[in-house]
Amino acid sequence: MEHKDATSQEVNAALYEAQVAFLSYKNLGGKKKAEFLNAIADEIEALGQELISTAMRETNLPEARIISERGRTTGHCRMFATLVEEGSWVEARIDTALPDRMPAPKPDLRKMLFPIGPVVVFGAANFPLAYSTAGGDTASALAAGCPVIVKAHPAHSDTSDLVARAIQKAIEKTGMPNNVFQHLHGQRFEVGQALVTHPHTKAVGFTGSLAGGKALFDMANQRHEPIPVFAEMSSINPAILLPESLGKDFEKTAILLASSITQGVGQFCTNPGLIIALENEGLRSFMGKLSEEFKKVMPGIMLHQGIADNYHRRLSETLAQQGIKIEGESAQKGESNQGRALVASVPAQAFLKNPLLAEEVFGPFSLIVKCKDLAELHSVINNGKGQLTSSVIGRNEEITKYKNLLNVLIEKAGRLIINGVPTGVEVVPSQNHGGPYPATTDSRFTAVGTDAIKRFVRPVAFQNFPDSLVPDELKESNPLTIWRYKNNEWGKG
Amino acid sequence: MEHKDATSQEVNAALYEAQVAFLSYKNLGGKKKAEFLNAIADEIEALGQELISTAMRETNLPEARIISERGRTTGHCRMFATLVEEGSWVEARIDTALPDRMPAPKPDLRKMLFPIGPVVVFGAANFPLAYSTAGGDTASALAAGCPVIVKAHPAHSDTSDLVARAIQKAIEKTGMPNNVFQHLHGQRFEVGQALVTHPHTKAVGFTGSLAGGKALFDMANQRHEPIPVFAEMSSINPAILLPESLGKDFEKTAILLASSITQGVGQFCTNPGLIIALENEGLRSFMGKLSEEFKKVMPGIMLHQGIADNYHRRLSETLAQQGIKIEGESAQKGESNQGRALVASVPAQAFLKNPLLAEEVFGPFSLIVKCKDLAELHSVINNGKGQLTSSVIGRNEEITKYKNLLNVLIEKAGRLIINGVPTGVEVVPSQNHGGPYPATTDSRFTAVGTDAIKRFVRPVAFQNFPDSLVPDELKESNPLTIWRYKNNEWGKG
Repeated sequence: MEHKDATSQEVNAALYEAQVAFLSYKNLGGKKKAEFLNAIADEIEALGQELISTAMRETNLPEARIISERGRTTGHCRMFATLVEEGSWVEARIDTALPDRMPAPKPDLRKMLFPIGPVVVFGAANFPLAYSTAGGDTASALAAGCPVIVKAHPAHSDTSDLVARAIQKAIEKTGMPNNVFQHLHGQRFEVGQALVTHPHTKAVGFTGSLAGGKALFDMANQRHEPIPVFAEMSSINPAILLPESLGKDFEKTAILLASSITQGVGQFCTNPGLIIALENEGLRSFMGKLSEEFKKVMPGIMLHQGIADNYHRRLSETLAQQGIKIEGESAQKGESNQGRALVASVPAQAFLKNPLLAEEVFGPFSLIVKCKDLAELHSVINNGKGQLTSSVIGRNEEITKYKNLLNVLIEKAGRLIINGVPTGVEVVPSQNHGGPYPATTDSRFTAVGTDAIKRFVRPVAFQNFPDSLVPDELKESNPLTIWRYKNNEWGKG
Repeated sequence: MEHKDATSQEVNAALYEAQVAFLSYKNLGGKKKAEFLNAIADEIEALGQELISTAMRETNLPEARIISERGRTTGHCRMFATLVEEGSWVEARIDTALPDRMPAPKPDLRKMLFPIGPVVVFGAANFPLAYSTAGGDTASALAAGCPVIVKAHPAHSDTSDLVARAIQKAIEKTGMPNNVFQHLHGQRFEVGQALVTHPHTKAVGFTGSLAGGKALFDMANQRHEPIPVFAEMSSINPAILLPESLGKDFEKTAILLASSITQGVGQFCTNPGLIIALENEGLRSFMGKLSEEFKKVMPGIMLHQGIADNYHRRLSETLAQQGIKIEGESAQKGESNQGRALVASVPAQAFLKNPLLAEEVFGPFSLIVKCKDLAELHSVINNGKGQLTSSVIGRNEEITKYKNLLNVLIEKAGRLIINGVPTGVEVVPSQNHGGPYPATTDSRFTAVGTDAIKRFVRPVAFQNFPDSLVPDELKESNPLTIWRYKNNEWGKG
């Protein structure tokens, strides 16, 4: 369906309403917010088959994937409900008064996290549910106490409308302030710009391209009052194959990586797009097996024609570079809207000289960097840019010899994986879905897991307040029984 | 003493050395870092009278103030030592594996905070010790595991040299990596620019003017890889006087505020530069008493001639605005290097029309905004910019009627104070020394208290790691006995 772009008047009105909603929504207790988040999950499920078929039609993703993504989406809504209902996430700190301290009395001081204000969320093309309208950004911002304005991704705007309608129902059912969630359409750049530069907007969540995320980041920082932008943008997720283990495990490693690279037509931010290994017999066996695996992969229809065109352009560009050799590909070329899986190799020296080869090719592609020796392997890793993840594949006894490598990898990625692939992002408190630039604009925060809520809060301290005027989280009797750091001790007392 | 500006070669060398130091320093345990921080405190104390007299000579601050500031400086070094030795600050999160989970196994995932990399610190003019060379920025960055490069403030460069020497001794005594702390001089803008734009620099701490902080913030965001800047810049710390209480308590309120405004020649970021009240008999009595108090205040020598010149210029500019009336001032005018205390008033309507009046006048000055009614008072507060603090002065029974006001004030300031003044910043976990822009560039972080360490860290997650390869903080047996969030429960197990 064709959707009209929001006008600048509509954007202004939305932010005005969001600010009005904020002044009451921010004071709702965790229990009320939890009811709302649980109701969102229920209403999304209540959309039933209509949601599944709409998302399938708009994204070309298969039914099983959409169903599992819906599960992840309702799952994180309920996860944040549990988090805010329990309540300890506010990081309450209390230092009680010492009125007789010399030379000056010590005041009573109490601090906790508060919502930052209205948040603008840009839905992602590659996750029509889990990173879009009721995605992790929306759920964590609502959990924090921030109203949300979603700009629907134009590639799945009907899906977005359906989810927005579910959230609207949840607002009504649980008696939330009007306009605590709003949904706008905008194909033109100007809609996004108006949303990000509006004075009432206090933070931005974005998942998409480096160019798109960086443009929003720059706009936000050039505002009269700069605001944070959490943009997840670009990652090629290097996998380092340790030489001795590869000789023994080349078959299983090839099967594991082929599956991760080509899953969902390679359209994951955590797709392993770079494989780094020593050039030896093990690597040749690995590449042989990988080639076999890639032959079996049927080209899949990509999310939309723009993404397919971009994949083909970036693939041709990459294959035209010096030193590149195709090592395996889908037996069939596929149609213009499909992405054929392809794996190529390049000598480390050629890779190091050519920054284009370190840029993301969004789709079922991976580049193997062949290193003559460990010194070359270290150079490739030291010169690497920021990533969401880095994987090291090798047996534990060999990995122990590469401690120095892990010490460097920590500086380059937000999540390190041993003997596994980065696709399949667990939604748990220990998850970190974020990483040094250009993976994200702010490596200090995660977009997935309970800590995603920390992107949309700021601390406020209360000095010398009567107990009746501080939030329940800070009251002397701890009526919510949350974990607090009081006079330098953790406890629920 | 005249100090030569660091050349661009020296800046490059310093960042190169800082990066080398980082790769070993970041892996030191909390115990070793605590020894280092405690040794810094000891060595600063060992400087004895030389430090006191040098700081007095360079800043014109009295001996008692320098001694108390030294206590605060050694105090926060030891506070961070305790924090990192205890170890729970890393926010360890653990989700253990479920290998048999369907449809896919759940991996083992563990996460904690890691240091971000080399940090550049710009010392503040107004706190030669507590916000300078071994100030809160330096201490929290070193505690986090980040090497620090301090650019000395030119107004107290000899003091800075002495403190740098103490830190150097602490490095040697505790066997820290060379160059984990470095000290440079730079009067020219280009030195700061080179430090902030160097690719190895990962974060910046700054305390000073809005123009200075904003310039560093812009530079940092325009880098190829943007980095965070924690700049504490500008705050006029409104104090709202509630009408009924003021009628009863005008004398004690005037004495309290006069002392806070004129303390240290008004050279505090938390100086209450704006007083907001209803125009009534109580306010007139308050102003009368305030005038008496101000008469008694002797003009004090300011930190340096530039600050004094700036104070006089800003004061004349402010007094020339429409509607301004002088309500009290020091009996003596003072010399050109001195700041005479002055308090003026302005009707709310004139204040609301003139943005210049909401800008900081750094020195012993405060402006009283006279509101005709509560609607005007709310307008003044709603239109206010971001602040470090806001105070509400009134008896508890009256404050309870102003809950709506507190609800708005939370959005405008990092710390709210009831019946007190913002000067005298407690260095405790519940402190928040930060606030919405332009008070700071990032309202989500505090520059004072244990949470200041969070400015210089980022999370890293470890997936499927053997126990021997994760940091001690994440090992299964919890060898450091720290608080961790494991499988959705807090504990030390």
